[in-house]
Amino acid sequence: MTSPPPPPVASLLPSFTPTRLLNTDQAGRRISLLGTISSTPALLLAERAAFSTTPSALPALTTTLTNIKNLGANDIYFWFLANTTPDPSIPDLKLNLIYPCTDAHIKKYSAQPLRMVTETPEIYAQYVRPFMQAKRDQGRLDWVFNIIEGRKEQEDVIYREHGEEGFLLLPDMNWDRKTVGSLHLLGLVERRDVWSVRDLRKGMVGWVSHMREKLLDATVGLYPEVERDQLKLYVHYQPTYYHFHIHIVHVSLEAGGTQATGKALGLENIISQLETLQGSDDAGMADVSLAYHLGEASELWEKIYLPLKEGRSVDLDKF
Amino acid sequence: MTSPPPPPVASLLPSFTPTRLLNTDQAGRRISLLGTISSTPALLLAERAAFSTTPSALPALTTTLTNIKNLGANDIYFWFLANTTPDPSIPDLKLNLIYPCTDAHIKKYSAQPLRMVTETPEIYAQYVRPFMQAKRDQGRLDWVFNIIEGRKEQEDVIYREHGEEGFLLLPDMNWDRKTVGSLHLLGLVERRDVWSVRDLRKGMVGWVSHMREKLLDATVGLYPEVERDQLKLYVHYQPTYYHFHIHIVHVSLEAGGTQATGKALGLENIISQLETLQGSDDAGMADVSLAYHLGEASELWEKIYLPLKEGRSVDLDKF
Repeated sequence: MTSPPPPPVASLLPSFTPTRLLNTDQAGRRISLLGTISSTPALLLAERAAFSTTPSALPALTTTLTNIKNLGANDIYFWFLANTTPDPSIPDLKLNLIYPCTDAHIKKYSAQPLRMVTETPEIYAQYVRPFMQAKRDQGRLDWVFNIIEGRKEQEDVIYREHGEEGFLLLPDMNWDRKTVGSLHLLGLVERRDVWSVRDLRKGMVGWVSHMREKLLDATVGLYPEVERDQLKLYVHYQPTYYHFHIHIVHVSLEAGGTQATGKALGLENIISQLETLQGSDDAGMADVSLAYHLGEASELWEKIYLPLKEGRSVDLDKF
Repeated sequence: MTSPPPPPVASLLPSFTPTRLLNTDQAGRRISLLGTISSTPALLLAERAAFSTTPSALPALTTTLTNIKNLGANDIYFWFLANTTPDPSIPDLKLNLIYPCTDAHIKKYSAQPLRMVTETPEIYAQYVRPFMQAKRDQGRLDWVFNIIEGRKEQEDVIYREHGEEGFLLLPDMNWDRKTVGSLHLLGLVERRDVWSVRDLRKGMVGWVSHMREKLLDATVGLYPEVERDQLKLYVHYQPTYYHFHIHIVHVSLEAGGTQATGKALGLENIISQLETLQGSDDAGMADVSLAYHLGEASELWEKIYLPLKEGRSVDLDKF
């Protein structure tokens, strides 16, 4: 990559020339813009800043409005658009700049079309399980094994039970570790033969229920301001990595795509589904169909579901 | 209610005196404020407006920034706060005002604590089913029966099959009926003995699968720019009203609380769960536990789950 002399940081934003709008969230308050600074690709993520809700800022909100435009009124309901008066102490934009940016950045911040797929027990056994095996073989779980075997992040472990049915509890990396209303913890199992919810069987209900109890106990033990019925437990399918883990979040945590149907399954519902599943103790979640959404740029879509949709064969050697 | 002479609409906002912050979403870009106008309670909902993404507005975004403050930089990543320059043609706030407002408005827009509950088959049979019966008896479903019996909203019906296993498809009232990326339709069953997902039984799998196929067919027939695998089908439990209905949304629709685990269940997963459920054709979703979240101000929490938690008896006569 050619390296033009970098402009001073303060002049980066005014030097940004937009070329393409990559994405906008549904409410339009976050946008991703591709552009250039000194002829070099740059990516700008702009979002409206939070309102200042300090006691001094609130009264100023309405008294300093300009350009008030009344859009309509119906009985006691009134709609307006307006501008805030710029006050240097209250920024109204947050901006992230990636400069210079690469194609990977552009892909990551572009709107990605999604597809719904239904993974039958047959598709799971024939294609998805081998895909999981390939991902595990590629060493992507080393960070998990480092935690389980005590080499990394031991200071973060909140609760642990050792052994064949062991598991441990630690903060999710996206949590700030202090805002209880957005609490997000992870329960990781020790055993390596449970890759995902697909590996849970009827005979494991006692173990999973025990983990659920202990994960709840440990969480309310460490965060006494939280009650058990303020915690939501779920698993992802498809998960990001193939070592079984349980998400424990505060029920008030804003539910985005990560908790959505088509991605998240409630742990209590899974336990009950296993209990009432037909068959012996070996029957399990590998015997049911699971529907979920996938990005068109995901490997599962590109290597399994798109070929299946188009009637092409799936090449297991390319996993 | 005393009625002071109402101020002119243009002066309502500057006359608003905030008294209490009722709620703020996690990102802080939407707030609900209780206050007064001329000593009368008023409720102000303020939210950051969407960015203008017209070709002329995008270049202006970065060139007219003021008070740029660099928060940090790491390699190619830079963080800033800044103010937009007020341009009367690009409002940066949307404001909804309710004036005068009532206690019901205040409750509706206040942050509501949530609780997770696990509804066992026993709790369902003993308390929740009678609760549903009471709600149905209170005539809250008249609007549904008006549609089913052809008295209302017939112009909206997209697809319909008549009879004991009949159902119809129409737009959800929250959809603008044109933005395909946020498409949201509702499938309503004709029969009145299926109040919720709890009434689905193994013997109904053929019917539910048939409905799924026909709902997908009808949707892609009417909106040819949508493919079948771009549609997500789910049901709510607990639902808002007790007449079985299926949500059909575009997979790219931003998933908020309404699609979250603890509220939404994927239809394909339900079908597969029924197929693999132990027992005869009469076995069904009434035989499993379902976990969900409830607002503390909801009737189900106040009348069933809070008494159960506190070891008090549930008074079925108060449903």
